[in-house]
Amino acid sequence: VQQENAPAIRTELKELFPEDITSILYELETEQARFVVNQLDTKLGAKILADLDPNERRDFLKEFTSEEISRYVNILDSDDAVDLLNEQPIRVREEVIALLEDREQARFILDLLHYDEDVAGGLMQKELVKANVNWTVNQCIEELRKQAEDVEKVYAVYVVDDHDRLLGLLSLKKIVLAHKNTKIESLYDSDMHYVETYRPAEEVAELMQRYDLDALPVVNVQGRLLGRITIDDIVDVITEQASSDTLAMAGITGDVEEDDTVWEQTRARLPWLLVGMMGGILAAKFISFFEDDLIIVPAMAAFIPIIGSTGGNVGIQTSSIILQSLADKSGLDAGVWQRLLRMFAVAFINGLIISSIVFGFNLLIGNEVQLAVVVSSALISVIFLASFMGTVTPLLLDKLGINPAVASGPFITTANDLIGYGVYFGLAHLLLDL
Amino acid sequence: VQQENAPAIRTELKELFPEDITSILYELETEQARFVVNQLDTKLGAKILADLDPNERRDFLKEFTSEEISRYVNILDSDDAVDLLNEQPIRVREEVIALLEDREQARFILDLLHYDEDVAGGLMQKELVKANVNWTVNQCIEELRKQAEDVEKVYAVYVVDDHDRLLGLLSLKKIVLAHKNTKIESLYDSDMHYVETYRPAEEVAELMQRYDLDALPVVNVQGRLLGRITIDDIVDVITEQASSDTLAMAGITGDVEEDDTVWEQTRARLPWLLVGMMGGILAAKFISFFEDDLIIVPAMAAFIPIIGSTGGNVGIQTSSIILQSLADKSGLDAGVWQRLLRMFAVAFINGLIISSIVFGFNLLIGNEVQLAVVVSSALISVIFLASFMGTVTPLLLDKLGINPAVASGPFITTANDLIGYGVYFGLAHLLLDL
Repeated sequence: VQQENAPAIRTELKELFPEDITSILYELETEQARFVVNQLDTKLGAKILADLDPNERRDFLKEFTSEEISRYVNILDSDDAVDLLNEQPIRVREEVIALLEDREQARFILDLLHYDEDVAGGLMQKELVKANVNWTVNQCIEELRKQAEDVEKVYAVYVVDDHDRLLGLLSLKKIVLAHKNTKIESLYDSDMHYVETYRPAEEVAELMQRYDLDALPVVNVQGRLLGRITIDDIVDVITEQASSDTLAMAGITGDVEEDDTVWEQTRARLPWLLVGMMGGILAAKFISFFEDDLIIVPAMAAFIPIIGSTGGNVGIQTSSIILQSLADKSGLDAGVWQRLLRMFAVAFINGLIISSIVFGFNLLIGNEVQLAVVVSSALISVIFLASFMGTVTPLLLDKLGINPAVASGPFITTANDLIGYGVYFGLAHLLLDL
Repeated sequence: VQQENAPAIRTELKELFPEDITSILYELETEQARFVVNQLDTKLGAKILADLDPNERRDFLKEFTSEEISRYVNILDSDDAVDLLNEQPIRVREEVIALLEDREQARFILDLLHYDEDVAGGLMQKELVKANVNWTVNQCIEELRKQAEDVEKVYAVYVVDDHDRLLGLLSLKKIVLAHKNTKIESLYDSDMHYVETYRPAEEVAELMQRYDLDALPVVNVQGRLLGRITIDDIVDVITEQASSDTLAMAGITGDVEEDDTVWEQTRARLPWLLVGMMGGILAAKFISFFEDDLIIVPAMAAFIPIIGSTGGNVGIQTSSIILQSLADKSGLDAGVWQRLLRMFAVAFINGLIISSIVFGFNLLIGNEVQLAVVVSSALISVIFLASFMGTVTPLLLDKLGINPAVASGPFITTANDLIGYGVYFGLAHLLLDL
């Protein structure tokens, strides 16, 4: 690449899958990468652009003119084309659309630009093969032949009426096996799943996962067929959802990646750190009320950490289990009371084991029995309270329509810390006769 | 259902998708559910059994005789049949296989039982359509007609040589559009992805996701075609992977669900709670060395919580970002130094903001300037150390071949707590002239 040896590069890259060329591009400087992509034929170049990470792509395309971009957008799948254009400044976006040779593609893109990214309409592509219900199989195959260039993965032909309303689908398998003169009417399957444009992406993902669908037709409120969503896009939705839930649980707001700027990362992380800090300040204020007690029994301070960390750990464990069962909608939803009962049973066993060990430790290092009783009772109480909080908080947030993962991490930890210290110092004040 | 009104139930259920009948079954008693499934035709019943949650299915099938089970297993996809049989006691498993009417299915199942659940061989199904490279398209369609009953989703026909070695694939689209007498040889696509039986499930998931594959052929070491993995099974692998990583980060070992028994949940949660407890005991032992200091400056105790929680929060945030970029193999892998540098920059800004606020709070409530300096310097140090630990630990575990998610949650928190207290009390002892 260093010598910009065009023919050699072309021969080497021809052997590779487009996705592997993408990986190589990440390792190159933008200028070099542009050179490599320009050596490829437009179709391969378009595939690589579709496969690039959005952040990288935005930077990368800054080096291209609108004419160059439009050549690639012209042959991209309409959903990928819209994703790419949405990352561009409005001026570039409009120029590219105006320059598109394929006017149908331009119309597709303008249609799709209306939809938010996180609804069915924003996930769909316009490329699909449809057949009128009155056609024969032969007419259907002719249509397929016309569309074959544009529609990469077919899965099934969608059957519509004269008003373009979706009636059902016809699998490629059935087309292959059918007689050429059979009417589609007698062949197609009207038992099918479809989705309206405004349905949220997670609902679409759930539907396709639950019913093992490869592609899902998208209709408008009148039932007119507008596009389809393919399973590979849904796999991406599922992966992104999982990663953003994990980040939310770790106290990170928004979809941050390691290679985002320092400022983006700080902004995503600071809010929950501040929540934790506020909790810490409240804890400090609270503990300072007990300063006189601490002068008399300074050993009390030594158990502040174990109270805090146990409450935090139990709360996170409990809320994660609840979050997991909230995410898995296929199972039976247990009632709140049944959930709490089970969590309390687990809390009872864990609490008994942990407080017994800590009790033994206290006696072993020669602390007073009274202090040992205080610490162990506080631990049991904290484990119960944290189990309660960890069960109820995500359920409540879910009921309120807030993503329960968002507030389950640092929020639960901070709340449990405060409750824990309250119980501990309260018990100590009472039981140690301070 | 209460009145066991068979014809009425049959009529009602015929209107529903099998996956929706599954949901209804979860709400019924086992005895009632068995009655409902027996009302359905065998094909629908088999679909529902394949869709049931493994735990529910094990309990549910206890009510069935081996003959009844074999009727369903006879028509299940081979991969689902094996999953179902693996949950049964060995005696039932052998009886069911012996009773299978379809001897080919029995052979498929015996083949698949060899493989572990978490490798490509354990994910594949034997049902596929293959064609010899010397056939014509017409012969291929005939084969497709024969197999059409058994293979639910075809996607593509696999092309093999006389020794059953995989040569390439032929999409259904190409078959539909080709002339009947064309030789497959001149039509098939040899540029394709395939996988060996022993490859781990995550690698298969990554491959299918990266290259947007609907189905992936599985071969043995000699290149013989043994089966195929379809995308719907991979979607399940991805979802399970994400959920088990989240649980691991929350300090839960193994794949626990909310409806597992109390004992299973306790066993999954206790180990990391014990790790946290050990950390707490060590912290207690450590802090007790400073008891004399605490008697002189009891206000020191009040800031133990904020030191611990800040270290924990920063560590979890940092490790989650690293984990996310480890999981996303498509991007460029930054070096350790570059990663640390970026993390430190973020730590510097966050540390400066948080320690300034806490410094202000300390002066506001009238604490001594010296104590305020100790607390804020400890906070900055803790934020840096936690960023370091949060970056290095997952990278190190990943290098050692351990799942980095497993030890990132409670392990990082516990380690950061201990480091934090060390820094805090050390600084206090030095700076407060104790």
